[in-house]
Amino acid sequence: MPAAKDIKITKITKSKINDLDWNNLPFGKYFTDYMLEADYANGEWVSVAIKPYQPLTLDPALTALHYGQSIFEGIKAYNNVDGETYIFRPHENLIRFNKSADRMCMPEVPEWLFIDGMRQLIELEKQWIPNKENHALYVRPFMFSTDALLGVRPSLTYKFMILLSPTGPYFAAPMKIFVEEKYTRAAPGGVGFSKNAGNYGGSLRAATEAQKMGYDQVLWTDAHEHKWLQEVGMMNVFFLIDNKAITPSLEEGTILKGVTRDSVITVLNDLGISVEERPINIDELVQAYESGRLQEVFGTGTAATIALIQELFYNGKQMLFDVQQCEIANKVKNILNEVRYGLLPDTHNWLVKV
Amino acid sequence: MPAAKDIKITKITKSKINDLDWNNLPFGKYFTDYMLEADYANGEWVSVAIKPYQPLTLDPALTALHYGQSIFEGIKAYNNVDGETYIFRPHENLIRFNKSADRMCMPEVPEWLFIDGMRQLIELEKQWIPNKENHALYVRPFMFSTDALLGVRPSLTYKFMILLSPTGPYFAAPMKIFVEEKYTRAAPGGVGFSKNAGNYGGSLRAATEAQKMGYDQVLWTDAHEHKWLQEVGMMNVFFLIDNKAITPSLEEGTILKGVTRDSVITVLNDLGISVEERPINIDELVQAYESGRLQEVFGTGTAATIALIQELFYNGKQMLFDVQQCEIANKVKNILNEVRYGLLPDTHNWLVKV
Repeated sequence: MPAAKDIKITKITKSKINDLDWNNLPFGKYFTDYMLEADYANGEWVSVAIKPYQPLTLDPALTALHYGQSIFEGIKAYNNVDGETYIFRPHENLIRFNKSADRMCMPEVPEWLFIDGMRQLIELEKQWIPNKENHALYVRPFMFSTDALLGVRPSLTYKFMILLSPTGPYFAAPMKIFVEEKYTRAAPGGVGFSKNAGNYGGSLRAATEAQKMGYDQVLWTDAHEHKWLQEVGMMNVFFLIDNKAITPSLEEGTILKGVTRDSVITVLNDLGISVEERPINIDELVQAYESGRLQEVFGTGTAATIALIQELFYNGKQMLFDVQQCEIANKVKNILNEVRYGLLPDTHNWLVKV
Repeated sequence: MPAAKDIKITKITKSKINDLDWNNLPFGKYFTDYMLEADYANGEWVSVAIKPYQPLTLDPALTALHYGQSIFEGIKAYNNVDGETYIFRPHENLIRFNKSADRMCMPEVPEWLFIDGMRQLIELEKQWIPNKENHALYVRPFMFSTDALLGVRPSLTYKFMILLSPTGPYFAAPMKIFVEEKYTRAAPGGVGFSKNAGNYGGSLRAATEAQKMGYDQVLWTDAHEHKWLQEVGMMNVFFLIDNKAITPSLEEGTILKGVTRDSVITVLNDLGISVEERPINIDELVQAYESGRLQEVFGTGTAATIALIQELFYNGKQMLFDVQQCEIANKVKNILNEVRYGLLPDTHNWLVKV
């Protein structure tokens, strides 16, 4: 059985780090010196290596390109105020990754490869972690099928990789959101809960059309009635109504089980704010807005942590929010940041030391 | 403006053709000596080349692998009885390809690149076309995004390619089909009508579970009620009831607009058999079966042309069909084959000469 101790490291000859403009770090654009790569064949993960970041040599008949057997995760690593490096809840991402793999007929990735591999890789790249507020090292584990065959069946071979990208603050302006009633992201029985590549490519059209109309993203609704609220862009969504938080529930399998979503629910509970995970439709939302009970709307995800929403546009109607008054969203965001940076105790054991 | 005449050809040094076992040609497993490759950047297709089949050098942050901006087509080329080479309805595939591209926020591929490029490539590879019954040269045009960036937005660069694969008869045994009521392939407002990679990866789970139960494929139902019939595996589906053909209609956007589907409708009309394109649900089908009016069920697609179905299994109930008696399906299949091989006149101008 291979294990974390067998991960072979090939050293770079020269680091790219001096080329990095630390004041200009767009999301997921620059990558560190190393990457982790492992191949799956005959039922096991082999050739596990940390090596210089480099292009891959792939057959043009690669099934991942033709049939989309491809999944990923997004995680962040930080230096805390004492200069120690921590990863935020990576085991949750491993669980979700393997659920995505199961849905897409791909093999499980074991903990030694996903978690210990990630820790070894980050350990080697600590100097790439930005030490500035709202900056982090973005960690991208992903897996794709590598058979070269045009027959449609689960691939027999796969590649698992981890890339690291030093990343600046997510565009932090409060968002304008278009409530989507035409395009669909996911339906019950589909792959909406899995973090597979196709969900993202399929969502681009709606986002692009919303952007042409002046919005930042869409609020997805259900496939059947276009009434039941799902996700906001690529984030989970929370509504604060009558001092209670409501977020769409997961049981239909159309929504990603966000790690930040779960963390936000926990922090809200810690603050004594009750959270309802349940179906919520646009009519209830409009009604709450019109009666002055809809206080805050925000998205949650790894990239932005918490993204404030200043406008929802639904069926000709603008719902506006004063983000300065979004006390709860801002409070939760600060708590999550302070836990990450070691300014608050990690009472829920969310941080994994590198 | 680049054009077909600008396609640069790099010659191979030695053909692989003598390694090919002509008696063993599984679908999409072996590829010819050459491939076509073109890159899209700054709004135009550049570096259009026919070159030796070879691996691609791709960045591990390739957006196609992470976010599934990837589409394809499947087409067949044949030698007719006079030894002339024809492609079957490639312009229809070009139209569908560009509809897929539009849905996935990808650029259009122009006719000179798709059709003329394909013709030049096939011209160079004529010796790879199998001259045996039920054999063909399978043509695989595909396009994927090539930006190396983890931000989710339409890529600015793309690669378009055509691969050729000499292919033997599709597994021709009549199929046993499980009517799927749990998993969903597509929903209105989604990407079901587009031939994008993610649709195929997302379908593997249902097919795999059906195969474990002894079936060859699933008959997909709608996402909401799991009643309305969609496609059979990766093919369109036809039902013959009371000497009338019924096939699910396209307007909800959940079904692929098959080129073979369209050809079959035309041949059925030529035979004086009326064809209804309309929603059809499983209850109507069961009722027709129980009253002895459901005569034939078959799938249509490029790989199999017509795939006979000997069993539908729905909710504990077996519906069995004697495929020897499936007169219409077999007649349509023969007509399509005879048109392809030049034994019947090409009255609908389906054949494009290489």
